[in-house]
Amino acid sequence: METRIKGIAASDGVGIAPAYLLTKPNLSFEKYHISDVNVEKRRLHNAFDNIIANLKSTKKNLTGKLSDDDLAIFDTHIAILNDPEMIKQVETRITNQRLNAESAFTEVISKAIKTLQAMTGNEYMQERATDFQNIHDQVLAKLEGKELPNLRSLDHPVIVVAHSIGPSDTSQMDARFVKGIITDLGGRTSHAAIMARSLQIPAIVGCNDITSRIENGQEIVVDGFEGTGIIDPSFTTIEQYQNIANKFMNIREQWQRMIDQPSVTADGHSYKIAANIGSSVDIPAVIENGADGVGLFRTEFLYMKSDHLPTEEEQFIAYRRAVEQLNGKRLVVRTLDIGGDKPLSFMPLPKEMNPFLGYRAIRIALDRPEMFRTQLRALLRASEYGKISIMFPMITTLEELQKAKQIYYEEQAKLAVNHPQIGQDIRLGMMIEVPLAALNADRLASEVEFFSIGTNDLIQYCFAADRGNDAVSYLYQPLNPTFLKLIKHIIDAGHAHNTIVAMCGEMAGDRYALPLLIGMGLDVYSMSAGSILRTRSMMRKLDRRKCEQLYQKAIATCDSMTAVKELVQKWLLKN
Amino acid sequence: METRIKGIAASDGVGIAPAYLLTKPNLSFEKYHISDVNVEKRRLHNAFDNIIANLKSTKKNLTGKLSDDDLAIFDTHIAILNDPEMIKQVETRITNQRLNAESAFTEVISKAIKTLQAMTGNEYMQERATDFQNIHDQVLAKLEGKELPNLRSLDHPVIVVAHSIGPSDTSQMDARFVKGIITDLGGRTSHAAIMARSLQIPAIVGCNDITSRIENGQEIVVDGFEGTGIIDPSFTTIEQYQNIANKFMNIREQWQRMIDQPSVTADGHSYKIAANIGSSVDIPAVIENGADGVGLFRTEFLYMKSDHLPTEEEQFIAYRRAVEQLNGKRLVVRTLDIGGDKPLSFMPLPKEMNPFLGYRAIRIALDRPEMFRTQLRALLRASEYGKISIMFPMITTLEELQKAKQIYYEEQAKLAVNHPQIGQDIRLGMMIEVPLAALNADRLASEVEFFSIGTNDLIQYCFAADRGNDAVSYLYQPLNPTFLKLIKHIIDAGHAHNTIVAMCGEMAGDRYALPLLIGMGLDVYSMSAGSILRTRSMMRKLDRRKCEQLYQKAIATCDSMTAVKELVQKWLLKN
Repeated sequence: METRIKGIAASDGVGIAPAYLLTKPNLSFEKYHISDVNVEKRRLHNAFDNIIANLKSTKKNLTGKLSDDDLAIFDTHIAILNDPEMIKQVETRITNQRLNAESAFTEVISKAIKTLQAMTGNEYMQERATDFQNIHDQVLAKLEGKELPNLRSLDHPVIVVAHSIGPSDTSQMDARFVKGIITDLGGRTSHAAIMARSLQIPAIVGCNDITSRIENGQEIVVDGFEGTGIIDPSFTTIEQYQNIANKFMNIREQWQRMIDQPSVTADGHSYKIAANIGSSVDIPAVIENGADGVGLFRTEFLYMKSDHLPTEEEQFIAYRRAVEQLNGKRLVVRTLDIGGDKPLSFMPLPKEMNPFLGYRAIRIALDRPEMFRTQLRALLRASEYGKISIMFPMITTLEELQKAKQIYYEEQAKLAVNHPQIGQDIRLGMMIEVPLAALNADRLASEVEFFSIGTNDLIQYCFAADRGNDAVSYLYQPLNPTFLKLIKHIIDAGHAHNTIVAMCGEMAGDRYALPLLIGMGLDVYSMSAGSILRTRSMMRKLDRRKCEQLYQKAIATCDSMTAVKELVQKWLLKN
Repeated sequence: METRIKGIAASDGVGIAPAYLLTKPNLSFEKYHISDVNVEKRRLHNAFDNIIANLKSTKKNLTGKLSDDDLAIFDTHIAILNDPEMIKQVETRITNQRLNAESAFTEVISKAIKTLQAMTGNEYMQERATDFQNIHDQVLAKLEGKELPNLRSLDHPVIVVAHSIGPSDTSQMDARFVKGIITDLGGRTSHAAIMARSLQIPAIVGCNDITSRIENGQEIVVDGFEGTGIIDPSFTTIEQYQNIANKFMNIREQWQRMIDQPSVTADGHSYKIAANIGSSVDIPAVIENGADGVGLFRTEFLYMKSDHLPTEEEQFIAYRRAVEQLNGKRLVVRTLDIGGDKPLSFMPLPKEMNPFLGYRAIRIALDRPEMFRTQLRALLRASEYGKISIMFPMITTLEELQKAKQIYYEEQAKLAVNHPQIGQDIRLGMMIEVPLAALNADRLASEVEFFSIGTNDLIQYCFAADRGNDAVSYLYQPLNPTFLKLIKHIIDAGHAHNTIVAMCGEMAGDRYALPLLIGMGLDVYSMSAGSILRTRSMMRKLDRRKCEQLYQKAIATCDSMTAVKELVQKWLLKN
């Protein structure tokens, strides 16, 4: 009989496939002294040989399905297991100390992992540490006769069922095999949710104890629209959801036709739908999804992946490459948004009790202006190769904004000695993500050419609820009527000063938020590239005047986020 | 020649005395094997004897100056040093392992400290751990021939100069000897600042590297009004500050006469000036300072000092005792405000990345309502013995408030079966400390009889700046004009629904904020008991109408906190 479970709808779509549990078995072991050295060595080599054979056959199965780059990881793992120096060290421990294979192998590989992990600035070495950890788990599982889940070895469609999904899982996930995701933890802005949307994998998160209720191989339907999961669905249910899946495929095809269409409402009001990106690597997806530009270029990855402070030249090259690829579309660059939770190897920051309320972003930039000046110079120079906007993150007070602008103008003036026109086309703006800035939007608007509302942070501060904390995820309420009024206040304040108002948080790509945001008059909608065509398609069916009425009705009649959501749901059925 | 330094004015008053550096010398040592056991034992006993002699003479000096309770601590320390079992263990290590005295003693006492520290729920044992730690430092310092600062042994006036001041230092501080405090770290809401105000010791905090610029015994003037410190003051300077100190003493005497006076402005508008307290132990100070009631009774200490969840009966007794002592004045009780940063031994909470944005206060209460119901029942029962108000902390959404109220009414209904009148006189209210609640004050006001604005948290969330984090302490801006408008919005929203509006953060006792708050129409001012008479005295000289004009001028003409402060300073000179 089929069982229905309810979670948070995290990524649109329907997936139907057998469950694949991504739960790691308990790999703990006892350290003991063995009696027969040769038996123990044999155990070790059997485990190694078995894993190597597995890796080879998986690689063969996936050849042609994965890129050469992705396949190379298998060779790396095989090479680690064949490393004679490593084998010698483990065998010495077995022979001389009469250690069991688990202990001997763990001692040797743990040292290697620690050494690699210590190289905190080096992303390549960090990835190697993950490889070693992975090998360690595989060998222990084999020695203990346990089965280890391995996303990379997938060669058939599955629904991934996991406690939570981390970045290391993501890197192994292939949308051709992973047809859906269900997790115990997470909210709409968790890593799993954002990643699923960007890979366009249907997903349900925050299902509590789902990993303990589903077994490997059970047939599962994931309804990412409604946040419903169905275990052991009946034939009728499967048929019904296959229809929905087919319809959704058709809709996706229709969205594809929106690539070259303008972002306008049915009654002819024009907007911009832009993309949020982390580096210039993401720009092809921006183009493929027909974005009107980049509304948020997060520059911190440029810093985080480096083992030194990126030089002006390195940054200039990165910004120039990005803006040139955009081919005349606008690139909105956010200056360094770093803090206690996103540390830099070359710039130790104090450990903070509440990093989200700490020393970060523009606060660091104004306190250590040299780093900030370098970035501004690189951006000014890159602006000669395309349309660049610069926005300052975490501005709280007017004084901070004025200070940041002053530093910018100083750098511009210095460069203008040799390049008189430099920076003339740059638009200067700020993020609105701190409540005080939102409240003071009227005064701030007179100082900048655009606002970009960062809803993820603004919600987090307005509701005093860390968006990464599951215990308070119920307070992530973009549709709360009080919060909507604050957004409207920011938009009105901006418009009173001819300041463009953009939004670059998760809310900008939310289908329930869209009619409300159009109704409030938001100018620019910046979101993950994968949401752009869906949003444009929806926008083109909406009528701005009716959206205005919807917003007015929402704030006049609704007392809660739930009430607003119901109102919009009903309204969408009729519009 | 005299040197002037500048810090943050943290506690009013002038202190003139020699510097006393509260900096611990480096007590690290080498572990080594000794050649002569008897020499080493002699070193140990010399150190012990020396310290015991010191303790005895200090105790004698202070007899009559300290209470018997405070003197008893000396006997405790002497008893630890005379403990034969401890001495035996140390000597055994010296004899058998040929360890040096530092190592042997550290090994033995560290074990004791760890055992005591492990009893996390037991406040008494925790204090004993601090005693042992203290003894350990004293013995090591003596063995290494180093001098250890010791606030408890003070018998003459000093200015304490420290990197920062923690609760353990506070407990040793005696206002008769400590005439002033200067610290490297801290802001106006740091522990040092709050403690200094409550002990009425002049203080300057946030002076950066002051501990490295002052030497023991140097004459220091602390001007806690202006945040100025003067090292090696000239005769003229000393004379000048002695005059200020004398004037201030006269003023303090005038304040004393305010004890029985009503809290009214010069033009006859009535307010309430109340006290913030942590337990019923603080109530005598409330009475001595002529408070109009208690505006904030923090109940978490009742929980934190206990090793089990306080029973309904235990709580009932505590609340009844508090309200009875108040003799007809109102007691405003805040329901449990606990979270990741204020853990309870009997209720493990998850470790959070940002506890201030986490699972805390009403969020826990609504999630685990049994604990909340117990507290509400105890409060309902205590309300038969005096005037009690109940307020809910950290309310963010209307739904949370409605849920909390529903639980309260359910408990009231159950108790009303036997006590029909129970809770009839209780006023129900909520803290306004989350930005979303502040923005939604109009709707929330229709649901409660009073608001209490918690400015410490509200500022922290509005500015996205942890108030315990020195790196962002410049964002503690109660007088920021945007923030003032938010406060005004809350007050107006409350009054539109006949809801009383109180304030219980640091801002309520701030002399620059007072005329603005009166101008905005705030009804109740709740602060540390020590600030009440000063505030009442000031209030009685102010004219509400003029205060209204001041507020209007501040928000019409000022762009920054600095500008508002200057405006108020000038205005106060003329009013």
